[in-house]
Amino acid sequence: MHNKGNQIDVIIVGAGLSGLAAARTLRKNGKTVTVLEAQSRVGGRILSTSIKGSIFDLGAQWVSPHQHRIQTLIKEFGLTTTSTYKEGTSLYALLGKKKRGLGKKPPFSRLSLLDITSIEYAVKNLLENIEPTKPWESPLGQKLDSLTMETWLKKKMFTKYGKAFYRQVYEEGLCGRLSEVSVLDLIWSIKSTGSFDQYLSAEEEWITNGAQEIPNRIAEELGDTVLLDSKVLRIDWDDTEVKVYTEQGVWFSKKVILAIPPTLTNRIVYHPPLPSSRDQLCQRVWQGSVIKCVMVYETPFWRIRGESGIAFHDDGPVKATIDSSNPSRTEGILIAFVTGEEARRLGELSKEERKMEVLNCISYLFGHEGLNPKGYFDKDWSADPWARGGYAGHFPPGVLSQFGQALTKPIGPIHWAGSETATEWRLYMEGALEAGERAALEVIRKLT
Amino acid sequence: MHNKGNQIDVIIVGAGLSGLAAARTLRKNGKTVTVLEAQSRVGGRILSTSIKGSIFDLGAQWVSPHQHRIQTLIKEFGLTTTSTYKEGTSLYALLGKKKRGLGKKPPFSRLSLLDITSIEYAVKNLLENIEPTKPWESPLGQKLDSLTMETWLKKKMFTKYGKAFYRQVYEEGLCGRLSEVSVLDLIWSIKSTGSFDQYLSAEEEWITNGAQEIPNRIAEELGDTVLLDSKVLRIDWDDTEVKVYTEQGVWFSKKVILAIPPTLTNRIVYHPPLPSSRDQLCQRVWQGSVIKCVMVYETPFWRIRGESGIAFHDDGPVKATIDSSNPSRTEGILIAFVTGEEARRLGELSKEERKMEVLNCISYLFGHEGLNPKGYFDKDWSADPWARGGYAGHFPPGVLSQFGQALTKPIGPIHWAGSETATEWRLYMEGALEAGERAALEVIRKLT
Repeated sequence: MHNKGNQIDVIIVGAGLSGLAAARTLRKNGKTVTVLEAQSRVGGRILSTSIKGSIFDLGAQWVSPHQHRIQTLIKEFGLTTTSTYKEGTSLYALLGKKKRGLGKKPPFSRLSLLDITSIEYAVKNLLENIEPTKPWESPLGQKLDSLTMETWLKKKMFTKYGKAFYRQVYEEGLCGRLSEVSVLDLIWSIKSTGSFDQYLSAEEEWITNGAQEIPNRIAEELGDTVLLDSKVLRIDWDDTEVKVYTEQGVWFSKKVILAIPPTLTNRIVYHPPLPSSRDQLCQRVWQGSVIKCVMVYETPFWRIRGESGIAFHDDGPVKATIDSSNPSRTEGILIAFVTGEEARRLGELSKEERKMEVLNCISYLFGHEGLNPKGYFDKDWSADPWARGGYAGHFPPGVLSQFGQALTKPIGPIHWAGSETATEWRLYMEGALEAGERAALEVIRKLT
Repeated sequence: MHNKGNQIDVIIVGAGLSGLAAARTLRKNGKTVTVLEAQSRVGGRILSTSIKGSIFDLGAQWVSPHQHRIQTLIKEFGLTTTSTYKEGTSLYALLGKKKRGLGKKPPFSRLSLLDITSIEYAVKNLLENIEPTKPWESPLGQKLDSLTMETWLKKKMFTKYGKAFYRQVYEEGLCGRLSEVSVLDLIWSIKSTGSFDQYLSAEEEWITNGAQEIPNRIAEELGDTVLLDSKVLRIDWDDTEVKVYTEQGVWFSKKVILAIPPTLTNRIVYHPPLPSSRDQLCQRVWQGSVIKCVMVYETPFWRIRGESGIAFHDDGPVKATIDSSNPSRTEGILIAFVTGEEARRLGELSKEERKMEVLNCISYLFGHEGLNPKGYFDKDWSADPWARGGYAGHFPPGVLSQFGQALTKPIGPIHWAGSETATEWRLYMEGALEAGERAALEVIRKLT
């Protein structure tokens, strides 16, 4: 199978949100596209599922009211959002002790609180002084890129509890260790959300109908230009043409957009080979380890006890939990994240053993009612060959400052999308949209 | 093409030194092997070439008298070594100034010398306290893995000149930045050489006939079990059988040994996919950027002036030079290494521009005679799709302590070789041999 006689404008590799956004933008501008997706479904790191009418997300889920692209799509497609439940006390299971606190009044000592306020102040100060698109170009950016978050945290914080809290929050966010990223990796991500307050709004609401609705609706619009089960094996390119090889045949186009995580772009064969700056960048950007678990209970039993369902935990497999119950239904839904080394350990257990470990941990956090959900689902993103980790790609020290420019720099007819290449809301669904649109616009400028 | 009716014991992917050593060990133990090599030649990161009878190496070259495996092969194959020329003064072109010094009397101030002695003392102290095979398992190993070399150097050294010298030496060795690796990455490498003194002996001699002779001779012995131009695309595996797919067909075996750099192992498709600990390890181990340049002059003109031909340079493309003239011939051969960002920059220039930049830098270091070699050759290892960098793979902070065990841990019938997996002389040719033999012995134990 091939389209030689009928060359299209742009082939897009990957029908995640970013690839679909690129395809949509290109079509709106009169360009012909083909989207090649390796899996039998669209959505990439978005994956909704349902049980008896209850819909929930095993992948990306939360949105911020400040994310205008995704909010526009939500409205356009007639979807709704639910505000994240935050009533009542949250659990802080840190340093072997279980404490409770209200969202705005966490159970910290005055000294820990001072410590946390001061690190937030330091973060805000850095945010004001770095540039959002190429932060590695300034001397400050270079300096921040030479330090690990681990070294920085140890230098900046002085209370045991404050450090434990910050470590828990950021390591869960990275799905890795603080020693694995530079300070610039974190600061650039926060900067891309617009402000520290907007960054804190990232989990303020979730798409009630399941996030999967968004890629599904875009794919519906795109119709038969989206080809499933089409693994891209090889890309031959020169200044005038691209040949994209799948197991089914060869596809010809003028340009190609790769909308897949950086580490996966290196698993395609290129003729001629890509320049070393691009190849070596992708040898260094890592995806984290994460298993997202969903527990469906008869009722949100924690709410009755005045608990929010939010937990921070620095021991055992579950590192964080959050309530995701649909207010129009009676069942209670709790989401748990197993990240980092624990995700890799649980990933090698049987389904049943893994479930038991997660439920035991939930029971430690929320009491014995946690042990018997009527439904349990999980998704190991690190094991998924088309994601190979989550939530997103991160940069070890020394990488952004040397290779940052290679992240989006086109190579001949090859352009790069995916949430990792975004400069607004990097690593979020909003970032996937922004990156897809940006890559599409790059290509449109070249084609016209 | 396939061998279904005639299953062999072990398929080896990669005919670099490690894969060839594995094949040799397996055959000596009565096992049947097939070596699949992507390129049209054997040797991997070893590559000798010649001009008018003068042989030189564009890849791995130097050996230590303490490397017993490679020394045994050198004797067995009737090859000879040449001692590295170290007579006369060496150049220290650091911090914008060009100084000369004798090997044992570098042109450092007393304070810089004290600084360098004290960092060497610190390194030796760490060497005594870490374990050579799984150094990440001790609390010290975990601690060293959380720090970058950059942070450590800044903390431990106090003179500008001392720091500049150490940075130059180690960044040239890494072909990357000090901020890109953990202290454990460096200490483990040194530890694997046996001692700090043995580490310093790594470039004491070179194989006069060209290092390529070693893989060539082993490949000759192995005869038609080595298949060139056989790119491995996919490996299907279970507990009893391995199917290895190349463009030419499918190969069946009981076990497979992958003797290629970690980052390249992720570019093969596996069914079922590899566990995330292995995949994510290989998302994080990076190869450095390096162009090795060889200049052939009528005479070793630097020697006449009392210079060794050794230079340390922290600016401009050439970071280090070394004399590699054959004492039985009249011409002078100078080797130059362009590493890190400069290697990537020069890699994107034309052949001619690149040559001019290198020769200009040689002329700055050694005078105008350097401008006109009768022969100039170079090899950009980062651009080579079957190496994608050199000298070898390195570990950012947080990687060895979480993923170190995955480096050699077999996955079903899949075993791992390559210099990066060695515990003796890691990252050297000797390490490639050790790793190949170790992987072969693992497989032999399982097969009998």
